[in-house]
Amino acid sequence: MEADDAQLAEAGERRIEWAMRAMPVLRAVGERFAATRPLEGLRIAACLHVTAETAVLMGALRAGGAEIALAASNPLSTQDDVAAALRGYEVDVRARAGVDRDTYYRHINEALDIAPDLVLDDGCDLVNTLHTERLDLLDGVGGGCEETTTGIIRLRQMAAEQALRFPVVAVNDTRTKRMFDNRYGTGQSTLDGIMRATNMLIAGRTVVVAGFGFCGRGVAERARGQGARVIVTEIDPVKALDASLQGYEVLPMELAARAGDLFITVTGNRDVIRAEHLAEMRDGAVLANAGHFDVEIDVRALEGLAEDVTRGVRPHTDEYVLPGGRRLLLLAEGRLVNLTAAEGHPAAVMDMSFSAQALAVAWLAAERARLAPGVYDVPADIDAEVARLKLAAAGIAIDALTPAQTDYLRSWRLGS
Amino acid sequence: MEADDAQLAEAGERRIEWAMRAMPVLRAVGERFAATRPLEGLRIAACLHVTAETAVLMGALRAGGAEIALAASNPLSTQDDVAAALRGYEVDVRARAGVDRDTYYRHINEALDIAPDLVLDDGCDLVNTLHTERLDLLDGVGGGCEETTTGIIRLRQMAAEQALRFPVVAVNDTRTKRMFDNRYGTGQSTLDGIMRATNMLIAGRTVVVAGFGFCGRGVAERARGQGARVIVTEIDPVKALDASLQGYEVLPMELAARAGDLFITVTGNRDVIRAEHLAEMRDGAVLANAGHFDVEIDVRALEGLAEDVTRGVRPHTDEYVLPGGRRLLLLAEGRLVNLTAAEGHPAAVMDMSFSAQALAVAWLAAERARLAPGVYDVPADIDAEVARLKLAAAGIAIDALTPAQTDYLRSWRLGS
Amino acid sequence: MEADDAQLAEAGERRIEWAMRAMPVLRAVGERFAATRPLEGLRIAACLHVTAETAVLMGALRAGGAEIALAASNPLSTQDDVAAALRGYEVDVRARAGVDRDTYYRHINEALDIAPDLVLDDGCDLVNTLHTERLDLLDGVGGGCEETTTGIIRLRQMAAEQALRFPVVAVNDTRTKRMFDNRYGTGQSTLDGIMRATNMLIAGRTVVVAGFGFCGRGVAERARGQGARVIVTEIDPVKALDASLQGYEVLPMELAARAGDLFITVTGNRDVIRAEHLAEMRDGAVLANAGHFDVEIDVRALEGLAEDVTRGVRPHTDEYVLPGGRRLLLLAEGRLVNLTAAEGHPAAVMDMSFSAQALAVAWLAAERARLAPGVYDVPADIDAEVARLKLAAAGIAIDALTPAQTDYLRSWRLGS
Amino acid sequence: MEADDAQLAEAGERRIEWAMRAMPVLRAVGERFAATRPLEGLRIAACLHVTAETAVLMGALRAGGAEIALAASNPLSTQDDVAAALRGYEVDVRARAGVDRDTYYRHINEALDIAPDLVLDDGCDLVNTLHTERLDLLDGVGGGCEETTTGIIRLRQMAAEQALRFPVVAVNDTRTKRMFDNRYGTGQSTLDGIMRATNMLIAGRTVVVAGFGFCGRGVAERARGQGARVIVTEIDPVKALDASLQGYEVLPMELAARAGDLFITVTGNRDVIRAEHLAEMRDGAVLANAGHFDVEIDVRALEGLAEDVTRGVRPHTDEYVLPGGRRLLLLAEGRLVNLTAAEGHPAAVMDMSFSAQALAVAWLAAERARLAPGVYDVPADIDAEVARLKLAAAGIAIDALTPAQTDYLRSWRLGS
Repeated sequence: MEADDAQLAEAGERRIEWAMRAMPVLRAVGERFAATRPLEGLRIAACLHVTAETAVLMGALRAGGAEIALAASNPLSTQDDVAAALRGYEVDVRARAGVDRDTYYRHINEALDIAPDLVLDDGCDLVNTLHTERLDLLDGVGGGCEETTTGIIRLRQMAAEQALRFPVVAVNDTRTKRMFDNRYGTGQSTLDGIMRATNMLIAGRTVVVAGFGFCGRGVAERARGQGARVIVTEIDPVKALDASLQGYEVLPMELAARAGDLFITVTGNRDVIRAEHLAEMRDGAVLANAGHFDVEIDVRALEGLAEDVTRGVRPHTDEYVLPGGRRLLLLAEGRLVNLTAAEGHPAAVMDMSFSAQALAVAWLAAERARLAPGVYDVPADIDAEVARLKLAAAGIAIDALTPAQTDYLRSWRLGS
Repeated sequence: MEADDAQLAEAGERRIEWAMRAMPVLRAVGERFAATRPLEGLRIAACLHVTAETAVLMGALRAGGAEIALAASNPLSTQDDVAAALRGYEVDVRARAGVDRDTYYRHINEALDIAPDLVLDDGCDLVNTLHTERLDLLDGVGGGCEETTTGIIRLRQMAAEQALRFPVVAVNDTRTKRMFDNRYGTGQSTLDGIMRATNMLIAGRTVVVAGFGFCGRGVAERARGQGARVIVTEIDPVKALDASLQGYEVLPMELAARAGDLFITVTGNRDVIRAEHLAEMRDGAVLANAGHFDVEIDVRALEGLAEDVTRGVRPHTDEYVLPGGRRLLLLAEGRLVNLTAAEGHPAAVMDMSFSAQALAVAWLAAERARLAPGVYDVPADIDAEVARLKLAAAGIAIDALTPAQTDYLRSWRLGS
Repeated sequence: MEADDAQLAEAGERRIEWAMRAMPVLRAVGERFAATRPLEGLRIAACLHVTAETAVLMGALRAGGAEIALAASNPLSTQDDVAAALRGYEVDVRARAGVDRDTYYRHINEALDIAPDLVLDDGCDLVNTLHTERLDLLDGVGGGCEETTTGIIRLRQMAAEQALRFPVVAVNDTRTKRMFDNRYGTGQSTLDGIMRATNMLIAGRTVVVAGFGFCGRGVAERARGQGARVIVTEIDPVKALDASLQGYEVLPMELAARAGDLFITVTGNRDVIRAEHLAEMRDGAVLANAGHFDVEIDVRALEGLAEDVTRGVRPHTDEYVLPGGRRLLLLAEGRLVNLTAAEGHPAAVMDMSFSAQALAVAWLAAERARLAPGVYDVPADIDAEVARLKLAAAGIAIDALTPAQTDYLRSWRLGS
Repeated sequence: MEADDAQLAEAGERRIEWAMRAMPVLRAVGERFAATRPLEGLRIAACLHVTAETAVLMGALRAGGAEIALAASNPLSTQDDVAAALRGYEVDVRARAGVDRDTYYRHINEALDIAPDLVLDDGCDLVNTLHTERLDLLDGVGGGCEETTTGIIRLRQMAAEQALRFPVVAVNDTRTKRMFDNRYGTGQSTLDGIMRATNMLIAGRTVVVAGFGFCGRGVAERARGQGARVIVTEIDPVKALDASLQGYEVLPMELAARAGDLFITVTGNRDVIRAEHLAEMRDGAVLANAGHFDVEIDVRALEGLAEDVTRGVRPHTDEYVLPGGRRLLLLAEGRLVNLTAAEGHPAAVMDMSFSAQALAVAWLAAERARLAPGVYDVPADIDAEVARLKLAAAGIAIDALTPAQTDYLRSWRLGS
């Protein structure tokens, strides 16, 4: 390791140490793993955002006995100092911030070279690569975990087409993940990223949130909590109705485009903001994406419309000048604004998701022989266990059922 | 019909007419039923709160061709004027406000005398009576619908014990019901009932909400929205954690009992507020229940502790004086405060639940021959249909997927 | 007293007893007055809403030694049972619910017949009558208190025109009154009145609040807290900007008229909703006023536009059918919806306003000889004293300045 | 100018250009000044945070004809790139980030060397220096403006002691400043600074806000809006009561110290968090100050208690290890966390404060000869003018009074 790397690794260590403070549950899981070694001798290929919180997860898995190769799940989100530190922990890291698409996929392939027994994915790129380019490795894979809504959608589609070759646990769909990570993590970090990139006043602004799933709800709540007037767009009538009953204005994007000062996409779909919407926007409108892939805002359309582009008018902020002089501001090139312009989810939420992840991996290691290919829910007791540990770490006590109450819930004969 | 009854019926008509204004979806379903007659010749025994909104549901089912007998699902919640009006609509109503337990069950039995093809229940008392006392009628019953969380818990337990003899649709578990009726309906009407009963200022008060399911969340949100400081108690660690992350203080009831000015139980369980909690409460504390049955506050324990009781210090408000002079105020005798002291859920939310109910009954009428005994989810398209009609009635337009977006969601091969 | 009156008085007593529970500060002031008799031998003519809370105030003033004649400050707001009970307390009450305009003013004149040393007013009708019809009594009046924003506006105008003949304390302008009574009292009771009158679901509705003073802010907060989307109209740019920065949409009434499901006026001005606005409203729109006088909604214009009117489609709800069939619903005939359809401000807020009122009367009794005609602020220490007593009653302790902190605030020489 | 300086100045230009976008009101004022030259030939000494927004103000004053010397009003808040850019605009800047106390005061003295006709201050250090060290210059000073609550407290004390030698406009006390800058600006930027420094999850944390003035209210709202449970401490009973009625828990610091995860001081006073409070805090508690001076948290006491200190465990975050191993984290050394760890108030709020400032300077230039020494309110029409321009820039239209309404407000004879 050279001097620069050593310095980088040291900065990474500091970051990881900071993250660990806010991750008491994952620390507890790591200690349990060190004692029980549930992953002894297993090889894991992981494709995750290479951040301090991921490093703590890697630590827990290593403590459990796993050998790990790690690629980044996003070309921009890698924290190079953390990557440097992880190399010191004997994790084979294949990631660097700002790589191009080819290098991104090369890294995934290099991680797969470990010939994994288990895989961890965040967006399904690694699993997809396995099923399209590395078919030779498929027989060795006993199972996987997927972390995102986007990835689960892809996996369910694969399962429906009989294309999926091993069992995958939908870590994303645990209550602890969806309720906490998607809602509170994405909510805070997205607004944080936007404020760091622009230092704009949120109060009084009209913020358009596209998508009202768990992530969208979190973003809408935080924007409202900063004093914004929030407009929601949706394609699902039930979610749209829910947004309306929470006091949000619900509009089709066509109309929202004219009203918004700030647009945030969180749908998991592509082309949510298209040329026809860009053409309607006000001078100075800000565009940010908090969905997994950089396809939600049609950046190519924006480039096509623009007469002039200035990169970096603020950090992570590019200005596109449209005919007539209207200026649109695109943050983080349309990539995940919370990971690019801020630091991603706070460690305290990742603590829950990654603890569920770690426990799910251990469960998969034990059960994989018995599981057919398909998408599986995280066992409910893992969810409750993570919540219980988290409450305990926060010093929060809750009630327990009395025997009479347990009986009451069981008995259908007692009535009015 | 005598003069008084006629006057009562007229008042009921006015109430029903008022409710219909806020129930555009159920009106649309009724019109569709009048054209298609999906319930032609079927006998339905229903056990529901006899309110104006229920009357609109009865109208839709009648329009679909059903013959109906209706008993009350709660001894206190019957609106006598609505009952009178319903008799004019050829619904066989067996209900009167304020009846005793025996009369309550006699009414259910009388409704069952219709020998139902289908049943509608709200709390599972009618289904329970069928399975314990009227076994002779069971063969004729093709299926049922259940409206409450409490009822579903009882039914699932019956199913688990193989005791359930016909298919039941868990109307309560539709997204439109749980997200809207339980959350927004219970939330508003509970606070409304408490304000009508006490005229107390909610702002600045410490409100303890026991239970953080959909109903409890709704109550907590509305209490906070009125300026209260809200404390949540729970037994489920995931819900407790969620409450905490929404900024509520989470405490065991033992500690919350000392802090609260107002206690609202919404758990679906018994003995949530017990003698040991009552003994800790402040002078002037107010106790209200918004859970289905009147078992959540241990009223018998309260009576046992009290040295003196004054009924009706305010409408629906009884004062219990404890040793040492502390006064506790029990609302609505511990029964559903929203139905007793106010008018239950606003028609606008019942519009959704009852539309889902009506469509589920029609589905059950068509499919019942093919369904084994058990608890069934409402088909997802009913849910979406209700939401779509509701949005349209409110004049809210939403986006539709483009073909490219539909493809994108289907394709697992596109990635970073 | 006849049997009916006795029964009425007994009901009034219960109401008053209930109000006293929530008025610990005024009770404490009453006890102090009983000991010090600051109003010994003084005659007071009061024009106030005749409610249970006012009765507690009357009790405190009586304890202080005053002789009192009381007229209603609104033709609809009198609680007849409280009036009956007050007569038993030797207060000369001239008020009855639902009187016409002539009787209303006759009552005020009868109250003035006491030849007051001091006057209490709520809306300035009594002071106005004194200055226009009962000039003979003016020399005897040492001073007065005014309770409302509306009244203060009228009084300042009188003072500016040199027409005001005695000192008046602007009780309305105390921080405890404006911050608490106007904001939290009007906020809760207005929504409460609307829910009692209509049982409408507030969540998801577009609520237009006209006026963003303290009262309007309170109404907007409570509407939002019930899940509404709130639009604010204003004429003051600073208040409009503040509303906008709190995340409310700000529109001129012309545009808001088209968007609203529910309109609430709280401006202190007339004709806020005029024919041109009514002509734009949606079918089913609800109109309510929470401003002092019934001039904010132009009811005459509404009557002029309507082809048909049905009184009482719900309690306190009249339906106006406009050409083309649109139906507008006017609550409480455009009078104060919180006092007419609900019970006015909760006692807990009146506790503060009326304690400030009582202490201001005592101050006026002591200082009136030294005060020139004009509008006076309540002395700041009265304000702080009321807040201190209120906090103590709620069991809330706060910090005190250390000597070093007191010094620091006094010293301008210490800097960076 | 050397190469580095040129680069720095260029970065500063970009920042200033960015700020200008969000400052349409100040740009409009600058254009008006360029036409009317109200400050022609006047020398101004200013002591302000040297930020991009201040640069825009300097531009407007320069456009009005002023000659300016500018010192920093805080040793840490200077943006060096902006300072470099300002030098290019012919403003004599005396400021550099991170200077020590002596240099800080030397800079103020150097700015005063301009022999000012008018002064602008932010915290009163420059005015204080004038009155204690540079008495020779006092005769030449026609007046000043002060921007902060802290400064106004000091100035009023000076005026009370007859020590103040010229008129000062309390720009801080305008409604546009207090309502917007203090509340929305401090609110957002304080939370922003804390998130940048710590990346901690705010949701679910117990945040203690010391002080419930305009700034404290803003901080409390934003913390709550991020999902925190907020506890308020106060010394003023009226503010404490208001906090309580807004649903905040109000506690003395002694008790709050045990409950908090994050402490934010915004009082304008010293020693708000003292040794006895630090001794009670939980492991991991975070301490931040958003009050003007770094005296609110007793940092010396913290250093005295600590057994070990690690600087920079995160940017702007120092860790103090107390006996027994508890770790407290102090942000920004107890200085303004919003200016140190984030970028201070968003330009959109400074637009209002600085526009009021610029207009107040012009008013002072015109009126100074007629004004006795003392603290003056900003003329009300300046306030309304700023709000009007801001609304216009945001495209928000509001209502205007009709003639009948204007009459109504003027007439005290119209009543019930």
